[in-house]
Amino acid sequence: MTLSNTERRIVENSIRDIKDFPKPGIVFKDITTLLNDREAFGVTMNHLYQKYKEYNLDYIAGIDARGFIFAATLAQMLGIGFVPIRKKGKLPYTTISEKYSLEYGVDEIEVHIDAFSNIPNARVLLMDDLIATGGTANAAARLINQAGASCVEACFIIALDFLDGQKELKKSTEVYSLVEVK
Amino acid sequence: MTLSNTERRIVENSIRDIKDFPKPGIVFKDITTLLNDREAFGVTMNHLYQKYKEYNLDYIAGIDARGFIFAATLAQMLGIGFVPIRKKGKLPYTTISEKYSLEYGVDEIEVHIDAFSNIPNARVLLMDDLIATGGTANAAARLINQAGASCVEACFIIALDFLDGQKELKKSTEVYSLVEVK
Repeated sequence: MTLSNTERRIVENSIRDIKDFPKPGIVFKDITTLLNDREAFGVTMNHLYQKYKEYNLDYIAGIDARGFIFAATLAQMLGIGFVPIRKKGKLPYTTISEKYSLEYGVDEIEVHIDAFSNIPNARVLLMDDLIATGGTANAAARLINQAGASCVEACFIIALDFLDGQKELKKSTEVYSLVEVK
Repeated sequence: MTLSNTERRIVENSIRDIKDFPKPGIVFKDITTLLNDREAFGVTMNHLYQKYKEYNLDYIAGIDARGFIFAATLAQMLGIGFVPIRKKGKLPYTTISEKYSLEYGVDEIEVHIDAFSNIPNARVLLMDDLIATGGTANAAARLINQAGASCVEACFIIALDFLDGQKELKKSTEVYSLVEVK
């Protein structure tokens, strides 16, 4: 199930390109204009609800911070729990963590060790607003599996397909992106 | 409209106390255990939906990052737009900003200058997970008004009432908190 032509036009037209953010040469995909447009936000979330309602998901995990927006909203629509995956040092209880490479250096994300423990062998959808090189998403998928659950699919609003992030992630889980930027 | 006794028990029991986080002497209110419990998350959001469905709101603004979770979810339930209020440097387009005092030093939050511009004189609900001294929430309410909209109420899942944050905020807007910690 993908977006209809009408839905795709509404969603794509609501995303704003910002040149040279956060640094020269980068065209940033601004989703705040999707979120503050009730039609575009509604079309996006209704599409995700229709797509995932038959997946028998137990949790949706969202990546800090824009991933929280879509993941928590969809979790509530599906009547299931939401789990935040956060930058190191933000979660208050015992965590497990995963490192991943950045252009320069290394970063680290965490999840609570008991985040998925209420449901044995939980089926988890991973969400973020955008996938670029996929470093964060790959680390997040590994975290979900290490926490005793199963990352059954990763979902993004936008994929920067020229950066090949989806290709690497598809080795370990299913991947779905609403809008692919070639 | 407040929580029924049954709802209150479910919500309060789902919040976890973490001692000495982020530093010794602080008891941190961990809402990840509310969010990953589908009953507690559902009761919380359904209560907020019932409370706010007659407010004729145009937008819900959420404070980075945990405020995004509740604000975006409620915005979608009400069929309205969501606006993120973020730490300085995170929003890609032209912003307006507000400084506020911390225990040591000053911090700054921002909103996009055109965040509420699709609807003239927009009625906005401000949301965050928790209000402590209220510095961030007061700055966020000022930002909403400066952006040409009207902050009609501020809503929190938890208020640390011994810190008097609600009292200061009530001088400029209505305030509602689900759980008050005395």
